[in-house]
Amino acid sequence: MKDDGVGYVETQKFDIKGTIELESGKTLDNVTVAYETYGKLNKNKTNAILICHALTGDAHAAGWHKNAKKPGWWDIIIGPGKALDTNKFFVICSNVLGGCKGTTGPASINPETGEEYGMDFPVITIKDMVNVQKVLVIECFKINQLTAVIGGSMGGMQVLQWMISYPDIVKKAIPIATTGRSTPQQIAFNAVGRQAIFSDPKWNQGEYYKTNDVPKSGLSVARMMAHITYLSEESMDLKFGRSLQDKNEKSFDFEIDFQVESYLKHQGTTFVERFDANSYLYITKAVDYFDLSEEGSLIEGLSNVKSKVKIIAVDTDWLYPVEQNEALVNALAANDVNVSYSELQSPHGHDAFLLEEGQLNFIISSFLSENIVADLMKTDVPTLNTNSGVREAAELMVKEQVTHVPIVNGVNELMGIVTSWDLSKAIANDTYELDKIMTKSVRSCSKEDSIIDIAKKLKDYDISCLPVIGEDKKLEGLITSELISHLISKY
Amino acid sequence: MKDDGVGYVETQKFDIKGTIELESGKTLDNVTVAYETYGKLNKNKTNAILICHALTGDAHAAGWHKNAKKPGWWDIIIGPGKALDTNKFFVICSNVLGGCKGTTGPASINPETGEEYGMDFPVITIKDMVNVQKVLVIECFKINQLTAVIGGSMGGMQVLQWMISYPDIVKKAIPIATTGRSTPQQIAFNAVGRQAIFSDPKWNQGEYYKTNDVPKSGLSVARMMAHITYLSEESMDLKFGRSLQDKNEKSFDFEIDFQVESYLKHQGTTFVERFDANSYLYITKAVDYFDLSEEGSLIEGLSNVKSKVKIIAVDTDWLYPVEQNEALVNALAANDVNVSYSELQSPHGHDAFLLEEGQLNFIISSFLSENIVADLMKTDVPTLNTNSGVREAAELMVKEQVTHVPIVNGVNELMGIVTSWDLSKAIANDTYELDKIMTKSVRSCSKEDSIIDIAKKLKDYDISCLPVIGEDKKLEGLITSELISHLISKY
Repeated sequence: MKDDGVGYVETQKFDIKGTIELESGKTLDNVTVAYETYGKLNKNKTNAILICHALTGDAHAAGWHKNAKKPGWWDIIIGPGKALDTNKFFVICSNVLGGCKGTTGPASINPETGEEYGMDFPVITIKDMVNVQKVLVIECFKINQLTAVIGGSMGGMQVLQWMISYPDIVKKAIPIATTGRSTPQQIAFNAVGRQAIFSDPKWNQGEYYKTNDVPKSGLSVARMMAHITYLSEESMDLKFGRSLQDKNEKSFDFEIDFQVESYLKHQGTTFVERFDANSYLYITKAVDYFDLSEEGSLIEGLSNVKSKVKIIAVDTDWLYPVEQNEALVNALAANDVNVSYSELQSPHGHDAFLLEEGQLNFIISSFLSENIVADLMKTDVPTLNTNSGVREAAELMVKEQVTHVPIVNGVNELMGIVTSWDLSKAIANDTYELDKIMTKSVRSCSKEDSIIDIAKKLKDYDISCLPVIGEDKKLEGLITSELISHLISKY
Repeated sequence: MKDDGVGYVETQKFDIKGTIELESGKTLDNVTVAYETYGKLNKNKTNAILICHALTGDAHAAGWHKNAKKPGWWDIIIGPGKALDTNKFFVICSNVLGGCKGTTGPASINPETGEEYGMDFPVITIKDMVNVQKVLVIECFKINQLTAVIGGSMGGMQVLQWMISYPDIVKKAIPIATTGRSTPQQIAFNAVGRQAIFSDPKWNQGEYYKTNDVPKSGLSVARMMAHITYLSEESMDLKFGRSLQDKNEKSFDFEIDFQVESYLKHQGTTFVERFDANSYLYITKAVDYFDLSEEGSLIEGLSNVKSKVKIIAVDTDWLYPVEQNEALVNALAANDVNVSYSELQSPHGHDAFLLEEGQLNFIISSFLSENIVADLMKTDVPTLNTNSGVREAAELMVKEQVTHVPIVNGVNELMGIVTSWDLSKAIANDTYELDKIMTKSVRSCSKEDSIIDIAKKLKDYDISCLPVIGEDKKLEGLITSELISHLISKY
């Protein structure tokens, strides 16, 4: 473990009491949910963030499992000082219903038969996955409101479903690189992947758990094909081009010739070691069924959303292209939802939501924290009082290396501000009284103002510093463009 | 057979004498080529056009086989009056080397063993396919020059290879919806398709010919996946949307739910009835190996091209996108090749090269025939002689319903032209002598002028009619904008 993150973690389990009602009308008993958490839940339980994973993800979003060679799948944005800052937030990630990483799925034991479900597992939907997550949030953690729900790809679909199913629980929502409606092309890719599994004789109608002979070939082909859709043409060209794998000449046989073949083969081979073929069937089916426009339009489907929403797309994503993300923005805006949109600039295609560390951290942390002035302001501010002279101001600026000095009265109320530029006025006019050169009608801000608003104000008024004033009109500090720029440079 | 085309046809065979040397260094003996022809080869053998088929095509490009339910795969552009006009051209199409439709391929008998080649068949390339076609053209038909070579997708690759391998044989070339270099994404799709076949236990290392148990599952999955790449997302949305197949509600099981699934399944199922899995392996490998930039760049790869070239792309093709076709145009232009570019406007994606009847016929026929004035001009033209009066001219125009009357002398030499508009001048000026109102310095053209040039001339000079003059200065007919517009409206 090389770590500046959340350190060692272990996947936990929560057994849901009672019966889960599914969208199909069927039910599931004895559902177990595998989850991990990072950071600490605060006393009032107001700092929780839920992460939803993609098609083949799991609960292990951050930190390290013992002896693992790599950290959780979204470690780049989870941890102290990262966008999902574990010093501030309590972050939860659970494996989806139907999965094979600890949460109940087709490989789990059916309590009615004592055998693995296999294809007797009921078909589940994104809504069912979200309902199970909601039980975890409410019953396991007693959390009544989530600061945010966030996820990419199929994780983004779950975020959208959370916004609709539980509008009062989700304060902020960040669906990334996703769609409100699986298109026929997306369904087609999933359907062919399933066909590859069905075609593998070792699949055996889903009954392979008792053997050591699982349908690796079929699952591997499904994964290889899906993996093509996760990369952009550009990234494949940059990464592989037409380079040959461990040879200088074309082989003129059916061994692997090109690096891209080797890479895909590797993706397929490693995937089957970690994933259950039946789970792949159930989860892709849930994705195919996802359609928020079923009632007529996306606008209708998203009509009861109350969360503040940030939609993030990837410019080179051809699986869930920009247009499908923009359609969500438009439908939310049509419902007067507070929605904003950001686009990752990346050559990586769909996979960018797992890779673009800098952009993701900046966009998500800005949206989540919406840093307020209190987070950044300088409080240890040298001031002068109204009786001071120009010479004192000049000396103070040199000594403290500042360009702005607030002028306060005896009870620390702001009377004006004097800048190094004002000093040149003094010299030009032969004036030595501060009162005559300082700016008296000073623009100011309060500690609770959002940094984004203040950055905009600084830009609009072409100034580089604002005094921070309390409700009692007393000076509390200064916020400067320099301090704000540090925030952005952090990632 | 419902037909305005070439009628019933049969696939022929040609046995190549001697040995075919392959790019791999291996050789093939006893190669048979399956082919069809449409139209008649003229005496001087100057009217032949070669068609190259795509990945899973065959020699049957046009007309009807006995009892068939549909015609050849490119019947829309081959036949009397179509772009590849069988009244003018002798059209040849042959099955590629490595194929399974009559030309020698992995399912053929290896003369050395008396058994099917299977995976003992040597790996072949696009260049090898073209070399075999060249033997057919030269030895079977004794044709020394081809009026044109034309093909889409992998057929387009063969056209490009023809331009390079045999620059003196190919007068005109039309590569459609293709690329000069298989990209890693294209290779990836082919590699996964092959993997699906390899994974099918019935493939059995390619030795399945003796059984009735061929690797249908693997080949079907490969075809289903490839088929996704042939359609645009837009066309899938228009064609299927999220419509359910024969049901009103989602099934919540793993039967087919959506129409798009049913369609792809059907594509897979019917494909395995007509195609050999080993052929699919060999032909996709040939496509992967295709790279005209191997020597450094496309410009170098295309440096010895002499043909006149028309590149045609499809605006919604994401398998061989517009940019890859434009790269060919640029590389050819950099080599001073006479190259032009047309783009099919189509929702159909890659498949548009098989579907866009109107646009294909117009673009290809314009490029091929470059209709000359002789094809369209009116020869039965009412004229007057220089002694005629204005009254005679007016009467003739009314009787013959024409607006332009050429004025000729006693030996039919053009002296001028009078138009209905000129008559209004006569009335205004009270003149009744033709000689005073007719235009004497008349623009004219010759029978051999290209219609495209004449159309441009008519537009540039804002006139609607040109007399056609022979070398002996005698009037041969008239060409009008009306006649030209009929040409374009034909398709």
